[in-house]
Amino acid sequence: MPHDPGAQAEVLIQAMPYIRRYRGKTVVIKYGGAAMVDESMRAGVMQDLVLLHYVGIQPILVHGGGPEINEAMGKFGKVPQFIQGLRVTDAETMEIVEMVLTGKTNKALVSEIHRQGGQAVGLSGKDGNMLVARKVEGEVDLGFVGEIVKVNPHVINAQIAAEYIPVISSVAVGDNGESYNVNADHVAGAIAVALKAEKLILLTDVPGVLSNKDDPQSLISVLTIAEAKKMIQNKKVDKGMTPKLDACLTAVNGGVDRAHILDGRMPHAILIEVFTDCGIGTMIRG
Amino acid sequence: MPHDPGAQAEVLIQAMPYIRRYRGKTVVIKYGGAAMVDESMRAGVMQDLVLLHYVGIQPILVHGGGPEINEAMGKFGKVPQFIQGLRVTDAETMEIVEMVLTGKTNKALVSEIHRQGGQAVGLSGKDGNMLVARKVEGEVDLGFVGEIVKVNPHVINAQIAAEYIPVISSVAVGDNGESYNVNADHVAGAIAVALKAEKLILLTDVPGVLSNKDDPQSLISVLTIAEAKKMIQNKKVDKGMTPKLDACLTAVNGGVDRAHILDGRMPHAILIEVFTDCGIGTMIRG
Amino acid sequence: MPHDPGAQAEVLIQAMPYIRRYRGKTVVIKYGGAAMVDESMRAGVMQDLVLLHYVGIQPILVHGGGPEINEAMGKFGKVPQFIQGLRVTDAETMEIVEMVLTGKTNKALVSEIHRQGGQAVGLSGKDGNMLVARKVEGEVDLGFVGEIVKVNPHVINAQIAAEYIPVISSVAVGDNGESYNVNADHVAGAIAVALKAEKLILLTDVPGVLSNKDDPQSLISVLTIAEAKKMIQNKKVDKGMTPKLDACLTAVNGGVDRAHILDGRMPHAILIEVFTDCGIGTMIRG
Amino acid sequence: MPHDPGAQAEVLIQAMPYIRRYRGKTVVIKYGGAAMVDESMRAGVMQDLVLLHYVGIQPILVHGGGPEINEAMGKFGKVPQFIQGLRVTDAETMEIVEMVLTGKTNKALVSEIHRQGGQAVGLSGKDGNMLVARKVEGEVDLGFVGEIVKVNPHVINAQIAAEYIPVISSVAVGDNGESYNVNADHVAGAIAVALKAEKLILLTDVPGVLSNKDDPQSLISVLTIAEAKKMIQNKKVDKGMTPKLDACLTAVNGGVDRAHILDGRMPHAILIEVFTDCGIGTMIRG
Amino acid sequence: MPHDPGAQAEVLIQAMPYIRRYRGKTVVIKYGGAAMVDESMRAGVMQDLVLLHYVGIQPILVHGGGPEINEAMGKFGKVPQFIQGLRVTDAETMEIVEMVLTGKTNKALVSEIHRQGGQAVGLSGKDGNMLVARKVEGEVDLGFVGEIVKVNPHVINAQIAAEYIPVISSVAVGDNGESYNVNADHVAGAIAVALKAEKLILLTDVPGVLSNKDDPQSLISVLTIAEAKKMIQNKKVDKGMTPKLDACLTAVNGGVDRAHILDGRMPHAILIEVFTDCGIGTMIRG
Amino acid sequence: MPHDPGAQAEVLIQAMPYIRRYRGKTVVIKYGGAAMVDESMRAGVMQDLVLLHYVGIQPILVHGGGPEINEAMGKFGKVPQFIQGLRVTDAETMEIVEMVLTGKTNKALVSEIHRQGGQAVGLSGKDGNMLVARKVEGEVDLGFVGEIVKVNPHVINAQIAAEYIPVISSVAVGDNGESYNVNADHVAGAIAVALKAEKLILLTDVPGVLSNKDDPQSLISVLTIAEAKKMIQNKKVDKGMTPKLDACLTAVNGGVDRAHILDGRMPHAILIEVFTDCGIGTMIRG
Repeated sequence: MPHDPGAQAEVLIQAMPYIRRYRGKTVVIKYGGAAMVDESMRAGVMQDLVLLHYVGIQPILVHGGGPEINEAMGKFGKVPQFIQGLRVTDAETMEIVEMVLTGKTNKALVSEIHRQGGQAVGLSGKDGNMLVARKVEGEVDLGFVGEIVKVNPHVINAQIAAEYIPVISSVAVGDNGESYNVNADHVAGAIAVALKAEKLILLTDVPGVLSNKDDPQSLISVLTIAEAKKMIQNKKVDKGMTPKLDACLTAVNGGVDRAHILDGRMPHAILIEVFTDCGIGTMIRG
Repeated sequence: MPHDPGAQAEVLIQAMPYIRRYRGKTVVIKYGGAAMVDESMRAGVMQDLVLLHYVGIQPILVHGGGPEINEAMGKFGKVPQFIQGLRVTDAETMEIVEMVLTGKTNKALVSEIHRQGGQAVGLSGKDGNMLVARKVEGEVDLGFVGEIVKVNPHVINAQIAAEYIPVISSVAVGDNGESYNVNADHVAGAIAVALKAEKLILLTDVPGVLSNKDDPQSLISVLTIAEAKKMIQNKKVDKGMTPKLDACLTAVNGGVDRAHILDGRMPHAILIEVFTDCGIGTMIRG
Repeated sequence: MPHDPGAQAEVLIQAMPYIRRYRGKTVVIKYGGAAMVDESMRAGVMQDLVLLHYVGIQPILVHGGGPEINEAMGKFGKVPQFIQGLRVTDAETMEIVEMVLTGKTNKALVSEIHRQGGQAVGLSGKDGNMLVARKVEGEVDLGFVGEIVKVNPHVINAQIAAEYIPVISSVAVGDNGESYNVNADHVAGAIAVALKAEKLILLTDVPGVLSNKDDPQSLISVLTIAEAKKMIQNKKVDKGMTPKLDACLTAVNGGVDRAHILDGRMPHAILIEVFTDCGIGTMIRG
Repeated sequence: MPHDPGAQAEVLIQAMPYIRRYRGKTVVIKYGGAAMVDESMRAGVMQDLVLLHYVGIQPILVHGGGPEINEAMGKFGKVPQFIQGLRVTDAETMEIVEMVLTGKTNKALVSEIHRQGGQAVGLSGKDGNMLVARKVEGEVDLGFVGEIVKVNPHVINAQIAAEYIPVISSVAVGDNGESYNVNADHVAGAIAVALKAEKLILLTDVPGVLSNKDDPQSLISVLTIAEAKKMIQNKKVDKGMTPKLDACLTAVNGGVDRAHILDGRMPHAILIEVFTDCGIGTMIRG
Repeated sequence: MPHDPGAQAEVLIQAMPYIRRYRGKTVVIKYGGAAMVDESMRAGVMQDLVLLHYVGIQPILVHGGGPEINEAMGKFGKVPQFIQGLRVTDAETMEIVEMVLTGKTNKALVSEIHRQGGQAVGLSGKDGNMLVARKVEGEVDLGFVGEIVKVNPHVINAQIAAEYIPVISSVAVGDNGESYNVNADHVAGAIAVALKAEKLILLTDVPGVLSNKDDPQSLISVLTIAEAKKMIQNKKVDKGMTPKLDACLTAVNGGVDRAHILDGRMPHAILIEVFTDCGIGTMIRG
Repeated sequence: MPHDPGAQAEVLIQAMPYIRRYRGKTVVIKYGGAAMVDESMRAGVMQDLVLLHYVGIQPILVHGGGPEINEAMGKFGKVPQFIQGLRVTDAETMEIVEMVLTGKTNKALVSEIHRQGGQAVGLSGKDGNMLVARKVEGEVDLGFVGEIVKVNPHVINAQIAAEYIPVISSVAVGDNGESYNVNADHVAGAIAVALKAEKLILLTDVPGVLSNKDDPQSLISVLTIAEAKKMIQNKKVDKGMTPKLDACLTAVNGGVDRAHILDGRMPHAILIEVFTDCGIGTMIRG
């Protein structure tokens, strides 16, 4: 980190072409998992969002939960149960999921953004009927696990118009007002399409998509839509990565210019991706 | 309930002078306690809010929690503890309070408003730094119990401009981003002043202020500021009523035209208060 | 009429789905004949308009004259003359018609709306060149009897933008600035189309369209466009009803969702039609 | 009148300093009497208004009636009666006055403005509750003769915002919706003050204020407020001129820069007053 | 020039139909050559522009240089050199051209507009990247002589929105920020198309297009596009007129209603063309 | 200069508090002298301006000329003459000054801003009558040397509203439209006051204000108003620095928070001053 003011200035200057390119555009960022629990990492990611906002780029933060949900369930004396990577969500579990995501994680992110000098409003998919879902039907009844059927972006645009960074928890609402647990990667992809975002960034706990899922050195830098589809079909990607690739495909097919899967544990991964020519993680493009 | 269309029309006509009087004005409504837990009562109150909104009156809903917090604490294996009517709120309790209020109660109210044909956005005092609080200092350390020091109304106005009914949970934020449990009656009073509301309505589980707290027939219909102050000083009101009277005094002293303490268990108490000449509950005025 | 506040509130609640359906929409109402002369009926109709306006529905009132014109002609020593139901309108008669409609009836309606708590502006078809007409040509020269050839809605929209209820007299203007007496039902139909109204309501002195014009019990509740055309062709409707059905057909063919012929003598017929599920009069739909 | 295009251009150029001075300003013009009855004079005055509007000056036309009222009363078989220059106005007379002013004269002026290439909307003092009056109390009961107690300019501003020339008849409304016959000069003066007009122009049938009311050569070009007051007190002006001087005093005392009494029979008197340095008529200034 | 106020008013009245026709429209005026050097002529042309602006017509002034450039080059000790009517423009010449056009002529016109009571902002094609050009390629290298490849009208519209008359010098910018000398007639034509102007007026030092270029009496009043093209192909027009006819064709083909070539030495030629029915110069139409 | 992306991101993060502080504020920058002639330095300064603009800070650039004027005068065969540091400016010299400043220097700066990815509009004090001056009167007649008597900021605000960086040459206009050569430091100070700027930055060719004008090591970092006044009175500053200190005093006395005299030859001096805590040059504060 340079202490020489001239060198500092030079770094700012080098960011200019990237600022020019993305000013006035929207970037949807999905955040979750282990990278979100670490306080210092979280502060770093929120700094990145606030800086984007300062230079005229509109960030939208979508988050899931994960560790915090299991922790809360534990306190409630419930044992998390998963079938094919999906959380079995009975009514009581759904209540805990919603309370943790919307009442704890969401507001913690909102507060952190304020602490970093930004302004944010936290929303769940119930606010303004933003995320409408239906029950996922399958061989096994997973309970209140849903899939997005409609995004109403008006409530998001209202926050943007008032100069806030929207922070959105992955809880959706059904036709009768019931809550659904929806995959946060999918939510991010659907919102990116609904808001005609320029970029979708999924922050995860791995370096990106690997050609050999057991070899962390086998990072793939760029994937076309066709290549990504093929990898999913050929089951070349592990379970955690599948919904992320799905979300990227949804986004890019829906008109988003580029989708990225980045390692959220790398400090300021968002800034490095947006403001330098240093390619990190995996980029999916049309 | 009349089935005669002519009589129905006549009722609408009778509401006209009241609609005329309150169109374009803001009404802050505090909701909580037992009246909020009952599903059918809750549906009725939300209908009232939506109808106000339809006829051009801007409702703002502030809510606390109560029974649901105790229930959740029980599930977490914690025993609620109260000192002089205030909940002792250690860090873990605060987390539960926030999750329940913001992640459960708030969103249930938002969903109910949508089910009744309205549009709502749920907020906590952390969103847009809306409610800034400091720790209540006293002889006993109550933990994260706070009192409001500042209201930033911009985030509320953003929802109003986008034609939503704001629903606000009584969680505030401290200087370092920490959460505070604040009295929902006080929050409603402070917001009514900050938004220059025309009216503050506190829905409770009793008929209003009683001259003799043991005699439910001794309802006082109208109280001046001076009379209300005297009752508090003379400890003529019980503990639950004190913060309500405080909030009414804050509101009326801060420019709100009238404050009301109504029985939330009476069906459509808000409509009856706003749209008829039938005086119910207790009105506090300057 | 209920004196029980709870029942009154219940009636307001029952109106909610109808308010939701029509908020932000425009309703054109034609008013005239005997129902307009009776002061108490007139007050009731104006209350209905003001209430619509209060709940976010935009009423536009179009009126003719009738009895008042004959009365004024009598005072001027002129004998009204009709050929096939149309008033023979020489220059002096036209002057009387215009003075009565625009200078008397129109302003009396405007004043009544203010007395009922609304805000109105009275216009004739000459204002802002709103209604352009040409002479009706036929076997007999009827003088200044015209038919609408163009509606310029800008002047109506200006009043709406300023939150007034427009009240429009059925006088149109020719190419050389001369006045024309035009059928008020036709004016209402043409304005409903020009303003993309949701609904056209013609208030008349009979219960609606009758299948047997001599049997007041033979009211037809619903007519399709095809059925209405057939009735006109087969001369199943009497002379007064023909221009009303014509206007309804113009409206529905021009994109107005529904047109209604109601009995203006029934108290609050407009409210009953708009805010209840009680079908009154005759509805014409596509 | 020059046929030489160069000379025509030169005339336009000479008007420039006057256009610059009055652009964006409001000019209230009172019109009435004999000058209004003559068709060719009327066309000329309306041309002047339209030209003012074209060059960015906002004209507001206020008119009375006069000869046309008497004519209509005659047809109704009523004999006009005057006490001290004021028309005795019983209910029937008021009805005739209102019909003629609002239903005939007003719309004829609106039509003439359209014929001259402008856009106008005709209003009476009842529209938007614009002119509120109370009964003139005196020794003799004059009936519905009123004096202005309040001007609500919103309805005038709505027409201006929609780029119309407002044309206003001198009929006002009482507390109970009843009509009042008010002096049109007074109306013009009150409206000029309410709209913060730059100029008030009263068109009349004489050259201006005379120092010797029997000598048409004794025209006074400029009067200060003090001088005008003195003339009224000393009864140096005749009865027709008194309300005009009153209106001018009201206007100038109320902040209007200058008030003018001009001979409406002189072709294009308004243009000559506004666009040349040729002083005509009498100017009253502070 | 009439001193009779009535006759002056009459002239203003005669201009009304023309004002009505062009209000709210844009007129692009090219000015240059000898007519621009004469101070009195210049004052007259600027008066015309200001008067257009006063009556609601938006003028845009495009100018070249000519005599002043040669004079400046002489002072710099350089001899102007022309090949086929185009100035050979080496780097030093380009610098002189730009300084004279943008630093002297442009600001002199801006000042003159202010002196005539208007408000103006001077721009060159470099401001807001308004005029993008590329080098004219041909047999001989003419240096920095360019042709327009793109017009960015945003910077012009910004001045219009702020109620200024834009004054534009014919200097364009290349891809690397270098300056180009571009033909001012072409610039005017291209801007007229980009701004969807109603009219293009080219002021020159001859009466218009002549059918016999040696006979000043052989003025052609009207040319269709086809006729104008033919004249250029048949070399019936002299070298100075060719770019003017080109610009007119560009404009009319690009949607401009009419293009005019007028004698800028005739006093108030613009006013005569716009505000009278006196046809002067040559009009090109589709 | 770091090539490590993480270090680059860290630098961006360190700029955040400064961006937050100055977002939405205006900074007036005076540029001139030797630092402006060097192409590479100029590119660097323009980058700084564009980066400020990107992050929501509004820069306004004011420039003089200097070397380029002398060079042009030489080419015109004129010898620059100075009396007490002020250029003797006869009419011909004024013409050269204006052509160079407005037609050459100004547009070169505008082009450079575009090349660096910004959008700019160049103005002189004549545009929109922005800078009104009068002749400096003194013992010797200096010709067209003026001092600012009025700033009309509307034309600057129009460019800001259209998202341009205004670039302003130090040429002012007199009452009769004549040009005046005015000191660019003074212009910058006057504009900073008129636009209620947050900061004034004067870029010069020395490190700042020296306590001993012969010792470049004696830089003064901070000067209060009182200290700066004293230095001028005691003639402790040399002639080139006097107008700069004057301009700083004008600005700070007029409400500008801070004024800075920086060395324009230091790369990115503006960024270092605005975005780091590294104090460079001399700061004048109230």
